[in-house]
Amino acid sequence: MKNFNFQNPTKIIFGKGEIAKLSDEIPSNAKVLILYGGGSIKKNGIYEQVIKALEKHHVIEFGGIPPNPEYKVLIEALTIIKRENIDFLLAVGGGSVIDGTKFLSSAALYEGAEPWDILTSRKPTLKGMPFGTVLTLPATGSEMNSGAVITKAETQEKLGMGGPGLFPQFSILDPQVVQSIPERQIANGLADAFTHVLEQYVTYPIDAYIQDRFAEGILQSLIEVAPQVMANTNNYEAAANFMWCCTMALNGLIQKGVPTDWAIHAIGHELTALYGIDHARTLAIITESHYTYNFEAKKEKLAQLAERVFKIAKGNTDEKAKAAIKAISDFFQSIGIDTKLSDYTPNYQNTAQEIEQRFNDRGWIGIGEHGKLTPSDVKTIVEMSY
Amino acid sequence: MKNFNFQNPTKIIFGKGEIAKLSDEIPSNAKVLILYGGGSIKKNGIYEQVIKALEKHHVIEFGGIPPNPEYKVLIEALTIIKRENIDFLLAVGGGSVIDGTKFLSSAALYEGAEPWDILTSRKPTLKGMPFGTVLTLPATGSEMNSGAVITKAETQEKLGMGGPGLFPQFSILDPQVVQSIPERQIANGLADAFTHVLEQYVTYPIDAYIQDRFAEGILQSLIEVAPQVMANTNNYEAAANFMWCCTMALNGLIQKGVPTDWAIHAIGHELTALYGIDHARTLAIITESHYTYNFEAKKEKLAQLAERVFKIAKGNTDEKAKAAIKAISDFFQSIGIDTKLSDYTPNYQNTAQEIEQRFNDRGWIGIGEHGKLTPSDVKTIVEMSY
Repeated sequence: MKNFNFQNPTKIIFGKGEIAKLSDEIPSNAKVLILYGGGSIKKNGIYEQVIKALEKHHVIEFGGIPPNPEYKVLIEALTIIKRENIDFLLAVGGGSVIDGTKFLSSAALYEGAEPWDILTSRKPTLKGMPFGTVLTLPATGSEMNSGAVITKAETQEKLGMGGPGLFPQFSILDPQVVQSIPERQIANGLADAFTHVLEQYVTYPIDAYIQDRFAEGILQSLIEVAPQVMANTNNYEAAANFMWCCTMALNGLIQKGVPTDWAIHAIGHELTALYGIDHARTLAIITESHYTYNFEAKKEKLAQLAERVFKIAKGNTDEKAKAAIKAISDFFQSIGIDTKLSDYTPNYQNTAQEIEQRFNDRGWIGIGEHGKLTPSDVKTIVEMSY
Repeated sequence: MKNFNFQNPTKIIFGKGEIAKLSDEIPSNAKVLILYGGGSIKKNGIYEQVIKALEKHHVIEFGGIPPNPEYKVLIEALTIIKRENIDFLLAVGGGSVIDGTKFLSSAALYEGAEPWDILTSRKPTLKGMPFGTVLTLPATGSEMNSGAVITKAETQEKLGMGGPGLFPQFSILDPQVVQSIPERQIANGLADAFTHVLEQYVTYPIDAYIQDRFAEGILQSLIEVAPQVMANTNNYEAAANFMWCCTMALNGLIQKGVPTDWAIHAIGHELTALYGIDHARTLAIITESHYTYNFEAKKEKLAQLAERVFKIAKGNTDEKAKAAIKAISDFFQSIGIDTKLSDYTPNYQNTAQEIEQRFNDRGWIGIGEHGKLTPSDVKTIVEMSY
């Protein structure tokens, strides 16, 4: 096991009807900016619950944060934060709204001239403006971690940021929000959480017993809950398990003391930037080819995954590992998620070269758990995903 | 799944050589009281590491906190805290030293006349004096939770306390400390952590997938690591897994959203108070008879435990559940822990009546996950453990 630090101060308030507790969590004298996305919260009743809970607070709102939170839109929100002397941010939404709010939390206290530098400088944010979240879409885990990914449409860039100052002070997780989520986004959430766990698990053995068992436990739970929640979003117990799985998949716990990969995300982000493919689906596109291309480096953990999660008892290490790769793709397909780039765009032919070029341009040296994958490796992985 | 709140702000600093980082975690102008137990830290090198790390801090020390931290001894430490204007506490020890430090953290800011009232009043401590820990004995999980158990020898009482103000600010977990722990205490740590998980798992099914999988994962990890760490405390990887298992077994995570029992602890504490039997061993004494007596209420989860942890595939629910009870006792015995009260004291004959009386005297109404076990039930459970 590697040495590690672990600290996650976010307060989780989980369960039916908990949005009503919002007012206890925000200082009564705070000037609050409520941030949300495309307005679905105004159709499903969540907006009313939030406004009612905060009826005694001074609130202003800012809607329209798009999926893959866009820098230009966030800068408009930043202007309001400064103009209105906002001192508390409340994200009401999914990963994009929460990630956008994290950027704003950092940018609100940033002293540089150009807030985009927060992303390019790669310096962790040590202190941000306080913020909380009301999660409306289980998927990214952003509600209980301190990371965010922000998009700049102008340059087709998608970059990460984070730091110990960017944990939500609280996150309210009411599984009833799942009722009104479209099937496509439920599937995305399942695939996103599933891949988050894979990125922290399918590397090489390092004798970290609990981390492995916990990762396997989340994967097993997602596999078990997927058909239930896909079949009926009104199944509260299924929704609750789905929601808690997504949070636990990326709240920092299972990655402590072990190697992590994140190459699938690094490559997948490019597919979203280039074609606007849903984030979760880009992960499903890359996973099989990444694991096939890096088979030798990953086969021990893939075989363990086959045995413990997919209950594949037969075969040697290579055979089990291959069966695990197939079982992962089968899982994605079972929830209606296609796993080849050509399923999403007819114009995929130059994608590999283009992504290679983008990796080269950014001066990235190596990705993956060994930090050894080159832009040329990435090119091959993307080609294999056509 | 039940509604729940979860927040655990403790910073874990885990790994080889991490004690050296102590000085970064305590304000440089703090006046620190270092608290420890019987002095083993002066033989195994941990004391020197702590003193060296804090060479630039103003430190005072207080040793001699006994196992089952004794109120009278703690009151002596409290006198020093007040007299010397201490403002930061550092526990260097196992669960007893850390629990004692939590009491002192609360008592140092307590405004009542009699600090014992903190325990009898059952009011949560909202704010305590800041403290950190250097863990020397994996077992209780106290290093990452906000609870403590304090003993008053005078009245043979052992009572619990806690609250959100009693999380350690940080805990340093260096698995190398395991090297010098006697076999008896390694076994105690394994049994203690194992029973902590059982108390949060062997109740009734509530469809909390991850909580179950995580609990099972900790149990599996403990079963796997037990023979390794019992055979060789110099096995760093085994020590690291043992240590992280003990912390995760009682840091609040696996109990969220599910019913919990804690009857084994409630009864076991009485055996320690009466006979001074090691805490972990009292749990091993009570577990089998408690699960046998409450078989109908617990058999579904016991059967799931049999299947998922002990890999018992044969039999119906009753048969699997019985096999699980036997497998638990076998696990305790495999690490040299006897499971009957008569193994520990020749004078056990009146124990059941005595404990029934103590439960009656304290006015406790019901324990267990249903809150329905009466003092008379407790009497039978203790009798069955003779």
